[in-house]
This record gives sequence, structure tokens and C-alpha cells, in this order.
Amino acid sequence: MPGSIITLTTDFGLSDHFVGVMKGVILGICPTARIVDITHDVGAFEIAEGAFIIAETYRWFPRGTVHVVVVDPGVGTARRPILVEAAGQRFLAPDNGVLSMVYAREEHKVRAVTAKKLFLEPLSGTFHGRDVFAPVAARLAKGLPPAQAGKPIHDYLRLEFYKPVRNGKRFWTGAVLKIDRFGNLVTNFHVEEFPRMLTRPFEFAIGTRRLTQLVSTFADGPFGEPVLVAGSSGYFEVAVNQGSAARLLGVASGAPAELTLY
Amino acid sequence: MPGSIITLTTDFGLSDHFVGVMKGVILGICPTARIVDITHDVGAFEIAEGAFIIAETYRWFPRGTVHVVVVDPGVGTARRPILVEAAGQRFLAPDNGVLSMVYAREEHKVRAVTAKKLFLEPLSGTFHGRDVFAPVAARLAKGLPPAQAGKPIHDYLRLEFYKPVRNGKRFWTGAVLKIDRFGNLVTNFHVEEFPRMLTRPFEFAIGTRRLTQLVSTFADGPFGEPVLVAGSSGYFEVAVNQGSAARLLGVASGAPAELTLY
Amino acid sequence: MPGSIITLTTDFGLSDHFVGVMKGVILGICPTARIVDITHDVGAFEIAEGAFIIAETYRWFPRGTVHVVVVDPGVGTARRPILVEAAGQRFLAPDNGVLSMVYAREEHKVRAVTAKKLFLEPLSGTFHGRDVFAPVAARLAKGLPPAQAGKPIHDYLRLEFYKPVRNGKRFWTGAVLKIDRFGNLVTNFHVEEFPRMLTRPFEFAIGTRRLTQLVSTFADGPFGEPVLVAGSSGYFEVAVNQGSAARLLGVASGAPAELTLY
Repeated sequence: MPGSIITLTTDFGLSDHFVGVMKGVILGICPTARIVDITHDVGAFEIAEGAFIIAETYRWFPRGTVHVVVVDPGVGTARRPILVEAAGQRFLAPDNGVLSMVYAREEHKVRAVTAKKLFLEPLSGTFHGRDVFAPVAARLAKGLPPAQAGKPIHDYLRLEFYKPVRNGKRFWTGAVLKIDRFGNLVTNFHVEEFPRMLTRPFEFAIGTRRLTQLVSTFADGPFGEPVLVAGSSGYFEVAVNQGSAARLLGVASGAPAELTLY
Repeated sequence: MPGSIITLTTDFGLSDHFVGVMKGVILGICPTARIVDITHDVGAFEIAEGAFIIAETYRWFPRGTVHVVVVDPGVGTARRPILVEAAGQRFLAPDNGVLSMVYAREEHKVRAVTAKKLFLEPLSGTFHGRDVFAPVAARLAKGLPPAQAGKPIHDYLRLEFYKPVRNGKRFWTGAVLKIDRFGNLVTNFHVEEFPRMLTRPFEFAIGTRRLTQLVSTFADGPFGEPVLVAGSSGYFEVAVNQGSAARLLGVASGAPAELTLY
Repeated sequence: MPGSIITLTTDFGLSDHFVGVMKGVILGICPTARIVDITHDVGAFEIAEGAFIIAETYRWFPRGTVHVVVVDPGVGTARRPILVEAAGQRFLAPDNGVLSMVYAREEHKVRAVTAKKLFLEPLSGTFHGRDVFAPVAARLAKGLPPAQAGKPIHDYLRLEFYKPVRNGKRFWTGAVLKIDRFGNLVTNFHVEEFPRMLTRPFEFAIGTRRLTQLVSTFADGPFGEPVLVAGSSGYFEVAVNQGSAARLLGVASGAPAELTLY
């Protein structure tokens, strides 16, 4: 039997020793753990980006996986660590809203992780990835029942950044959730909430452009022109065939986007 | 018995969830798989670079390894996925020439992967790494016989970009295959095809320079001057002792190089 | 029983095939090895940075771990490979001082790795990570007694870059060891050597600033102002709450820092 899977999503980057140290702590406690990096390149302090990434990732992992998400501008302050049970998996993160998109999709139970005996000692003020999240993840992977980590709470932070706001009968204002490696703009318009975009005329305003064309794959778009695609995540993305939409439109993560349905 | 090795070479970068999701799919199907990242930093859409990297890599892995190479500007279009058996290993890639350097070196059998029951459902238009390559790789790692993935084909795409062209009795035109992390220029002149460079005078023109000096290790070169080295890959490389040849010569991947043998 | 852990710390970057090839060699020799990347982003040729990273990392790994550190501007020249036993772990590195901070903290035994039969053949002039360090690490992971790698030596290179120099009764000159991903400046003033900084007034001059404030966590600092923090590594760091101290102060790795204690 191979050991439990622990995934890591952080804003630590790969140039420092931080991620390696977390893995050392995990393997010291749970030698059979299979550690999988999701990304360590979440924009420093970008909670929305971390929220999107873990929400896109977890459902592709088998039941029992432990997901550690450390994107935490408030490290060392009062951000309590939380343990969330959802979709047959476990999530460890600071209580700063980074799991909001998991809450929106799944039945979930949230616990405050208060069992200090699970933490490394002495507890540092600056590296909870190592001292809190890694050892608790390793113990969960070894079979620790979640109830031993702490009690259920109901006042956890839940952010709503990920949904467009309706501003008129046929008019919504949303945002760019993330710019991916290819320069595609992942918006927060989801195909399940806006199925009419697939079949009816629309205007999608982003940057200085007004897009009206939806294609089914990136390569179907005309060269050099931005188009909309229903992306692999289910969100509509602005893409340019073999080019970077982010560069062409001069648009950054968080930029507004406006949809008019006809 | 440890499980099969699956290597991943992509142009997905490490900032997104793409690679993590592929690993989740693989481990869900084949929990014992040992996944090894080669690189996810192939230049977006750079088939030649992907071809070079997998060709330099595979022979250092044990027999039975499954190599997944997803560098695919044409994703979602008619690029069929292929499965190649060569050197006692298996390769999965789109049929876009990215395995050309493997074909050149090894006896090989190529199959079109047509068994749709091996794919994830629903099949997305934009993320075949997750929906096609990851699940097929995992099933191969679990022991699926290649014949069950699809039938042998002979009209697969084979590119010849990796070889210098002879333009005169003593004169060849080649190219820079890749610029490595240290700024060394890996050319497509291979020591096995050009053994005379090791023992006889030559002139090697690249950028605005004409190199005539071959050294045996990087550190043997004079500081600040570009020299040729027979690199660890077997290809001649232009290097600068403790400096970047790419920056010094102002040369990019794909740049031409001309060899005159005397 | 899971296999031995082998960690990798290099300056190879992640864009090339180098790291993947090392892993292939390791898994070919020791299929049960669990390979953990620490970082491959050590500044090319930056021995001090590599020394800091491995020193911060090793103690978080279980006994028996094999740490491979390949940061080697002098590859292919006379830098002999060494094997160090310390803290119940093993370290493989070129003899260029990159393990100096391990020597400073731990009882240690250093061997020159001279058993050429452990190396790959033919031995390349340019890629000892693949031809020397990977196969020796894999054999150690499989149980090779260190004595079979080579004899103890005493003339290994030991650098002292990591300690501030006392230039007056209350005055020390140190340096920035590393700039981390968040732009924090990790100095070589350690809390164990300078405990008085925690309780007494001081002036810490770096770039054009003179800092007098120590906070206990990053988030306690005023927005936009640099402060000192006792970092997770034990070294004092210059940090800016939710900002980059490196950018604000215009300071690079290696920059001087001066401490006056009152």
C-alpha cells in the first residue's frame, strides 16, 4: 500500500529552502507520504490566486489526499490554522479565505487547529509552513482523526471574490482570476453559471477590447486576435492563438471584465 | 517492488495547477507510480526544444519508464496522441515531431492512441495533458499492453531540424538547439558526426564571432572569451568561463551557426 | 520500509534536463530512493548561497538522509568530490566550501570520494552531477558504507564568509547572505551570537538606512518601513510588511551590513 498523498500549494517560490524544509518535516513524521507539489509560485500575498488553484486541483486527486495551502500575508498574526474536510479529502490552510472556492463547491466541515502538541517546538513567528502545517499534514497522512486537531468552527472567513456581480438585467461585472503561463486570462465567468454564452450573442469587454467570438479550442482562433474559450477549468478564458492575451490586452490579474448578454 | 516511473516534460510552467492536476490523475489511477519532473519550462510552443530535452533524458532512465512529453501548440486540433516504444521504454506525446530525436537514435514502433475508453470523460478541448496523456501514462505504468492503446502507424511526423546541413565540401550550417541555464549555447553539431572538430583546426561562426578554440571543460576557457566545448549531451556548446555566452554573443535559440573544417 | 531520502540542491535551474537526468541515474541504481528537491535555483556559481541553503535544510530531515549539493563553478577542474558524515546524515558536494556552514555546526568527518568504480563511465568533463554525485548518492542510499567511497581527509576547504567580523568594541560588519522570495534580506547576524539585539538598543546600517526597530513577526512592522526580524533560520532579516526590502533598499546578496550595539 503506498502512503497518503500530501499536496503543497504555497507562495514560497522554489529559490529558497522553505519547501524542502517542509518536505523534510513531513517525511520525518510520515516516511510513506507521497508529496506532490501543486505550485509554489502563487503571487506573494495573492489569496484569490491560491483559492483558484486549489479549487481547480483537489477534485483530480484521490479520496484521502491532504492538501496544504500556505498563502498567508498575515503569518504570525492572529490567522488561526484551519482543517477542512470536504469531498472525502482534507485541507490545511490559514483562515484567510484561501479555501473559499472549495466551500462554494462542496459540503464541508471546518475545524480550528488548536492542538499545539501537533506543532513543532519552538513555534516560530515566521514559518508556520514548517512548524504548523507540515507536521499536522504528516499526522493526518498517518491517520490522525481530524477531531484530534481541533473543534469545528463556524466563523471561518469566506470570501466572495470569485463570482461576477449582476449590475443590470443582461449585464455582469466580473474579473480576471489568474493569468496562466500562456498569457491566457482566466476570468471568473463560469460556463455553468453562464451557459448562454455558449449559444447566444454576447459582448465581453476587457481592457480596451470588446469580444464577441467564442471558439472551442485555442487553435481555432484567428492569429493575433483575442477570443473567448471555455477553458479546461470551466471558466471562460480570453486567449490568443499562439500568443499572449495578457500582453496583447495589457491586462493584469484582478482586472475587471464586463459581460452583456443579448 | 517500487512502481513504474513516469516522467513529465511539458510547456505548462510551474505557476499554474496544470502539472499538479496531471499528477493527481496519474496517482488516482496508478497509486504506486513514481513521477519525475524533467522540466515544465519548455518554451511555450517550442517543439525543437522539447525534442532535445527528452532525447537527452530518456537513456538515463531504467527500462520500462513511461515518458510523457506535452509540448503542443496544436492542442485540441487534429494532433493525434501517439505512443512510441523505443529503447525498452514508452513515450507519449502529440504527433507533432517532438519525438523526432528519439526516432533518429532508436529502433521504434509508433502507435496512434485511439482507445477513447482510456481517456477521461468528458474530454476537454484544451487540456489533453490531463484528459489524455496522464490517464494513458498511468495505465501503461499499471501494465496496459501498448497494443491496447491503438494500432501501429507509419505516417507520424518526423522533423529533421536537429541536423546541420552540408553546404560545401568543408562547410556546414547548423543552429542553436537550446540555451541552457548558464547561458551556454547548445548547438546541433554532435561530436559523433563531427569528430574532426576534436583534433583538427576549424572555424565556428556564431553571432558576430568566429571561434577556433576547443577546450575540454568550461573552466579551461579564458575568462570572458567564448570557446567551444564538447558538452555533456555530446553536442558542441559555446560557453564562456563563469559567464553567459548567450548574453555575450546576443544569440537566441534557433540562431544559425556555421562550421568550416580545415 | 520506504527507501532512503536523497535531497538535491543545485544551480542547474529547472529549464534544462540536468535535474531530471540526475533523478534517472539515481532511480536506475536505487529504485526505492525518495528524491526531494531542495532548490535548483542557487545563483549560478554562488557558493555562499548554496552553503546557507543546505545548512538551513539538513536538520529538518531524518537521520540517514543523503544530501547532494552541486554548486560548482569549477566543474571539471581539480575540485574533488567529498562525502561528509555529520548529524547522522551524509552530504555529497564538491570540495569548494559549500558545506562550510555544516562544518561550523556539527561534528563531521570528511572523505575524498576517490572510488572511481562508483562513477558513471565515461566520466564527462562537464556534468559531474550526473556522472559522480548521482551514482554515489544512489549507492549510499542503498547502503554503501562511506568508507568504500574514499579515505578521510583534513585539508578540505572551509570558508568563513558566514560570520560577521568585529571591528570595534560594539561594532560588527556582516553581510546579506541571501535575498529570499519575498525580498527579505537574510543577514549573517545570528540570534545565538547576537542575543543582545533582542533586548537592547542597536543600530543596524544597511544600504542607506539605519534600522533600530526589531519586531517579532513580519506583519507587526509598519507598512512600507524596513524592520529587523529574527527569521525562521535564526538569522536576523530585514523585512518590509507586505513589501520587498530588497527593492526598497536597493540591496543585493553580499551587500554589507553594520551593527552597533548600545
